[in-house]
Amino acid sequence: MTSSIIKINPELDLVLEREIDVPVELVWKAWTTPEHLRHWFAPKPWSITSCDIDLRPGGAINFVMRSPDGQEFPNTQCYLEVTPFERLILTDALQGGYRPSAAPFFTAVLELGKNGAGTRYKAIAIHGNAENRTKHEQMGFQDGWGTVLTQMVEYIKAGRMGS
Amino acid sequence: MTSSIIKINPELDLVLEREIDVPVELVWKAWTTPEHLRHWFAPKPWSITSCDIDLRPGGAINFVMRSPDGQEFPNTQCYLEVTPFERLILTDALQGGYRPSAAPFFTAVLELGKNGAGTRYKAIAIHGNAENRTKHEQMGFQDGWGTVLTQMVEYIKAGRMGS
Repeated sequence: MTSSIIKINPELDLVLEREIDVPVELVWKAWTTPEHLRHWFAPKPWSITSCDIDLRPGGAINFVMRSPDGQEFPNTQCYLEVTPFERLILTDALQGGYRPSAAPFFTAVLELGKNGAGTRYKAIAIHGNAENRTKHEQMGFQDGWGTVLTQMVEYIKAGRMGS
Repeated sequence: MTSSIIKINPELDLVLEREIDVPVELVWKAWTTPEHLRHWFAPKPWSITSCDIDLRPGGAINFVMRSPDGQEFPNTQCYLEVTPFERLILTDALQGGYRPSAAPFFTAVLELGKNGAGTRYKAIAIHGNAENRTKHEQMGFQDGWGTVLTQMVEYIKAGRMGS
């Protein structure tokens, strides 16, 4: 891995780490391809109803999450670092083209490493203050991010992405 | 120049363009070196009392502006793109390490081009909404950014940076 600019502060940040038994190339593809991401990125019975990705620093990911009762929640984030198979950084503090957003909440850092035939998977949520860290924790960060990671592994193992 | 992710929206953004008769290499150095930046970056009689720079995507610039009556205003921004002699992008929506900030206001884009022995200079302020654009305009964007640019050209011509 390249050295990272990311410094985790336990009072402000949340971390999910897991070793998973699917290849790092497919994990990267699942995270960065709209037609794959929509199958696992929302914890069921929530769903992703649309997704587009401009995968480069300054490019946006736009997606809509749909609740079980049909409410839709549009979401826009901006990619900051795109290092294939190693690190993906995106933030809701910016929109596409680095335009400041209305309600900054967190920066997401995905760090991946090859682990035999599997992957070391680390997801970090970086917040600007302790209140937002607590709010994110209470929204169910560990359960939510853990659940969608399990969904991603199942989706990859179902073989619908190729290998 | 490399192609840019930046899309200017005249309803949200402000632009200052000028041709200046100092070399692009020195303009880049003036913008990215603390001991030079502090001599021109604040419109006199305001001053910069401290400045440190971690010049890489995700790195921070921290500086303190001092008003003529001695009030100090600390400022932190995060570099997003660092392409020497071509483009520098930084934002106050993030702090160092891509941590969301408390009060996002704008992203600054500096675009430079060689123009004979001089430089095509373009500074863009990108805002998240029309209110912040108006506020920035009323704070004196054109005068302020124009004044410090003139100060920068004079500083470079005074030969204190080398050539």
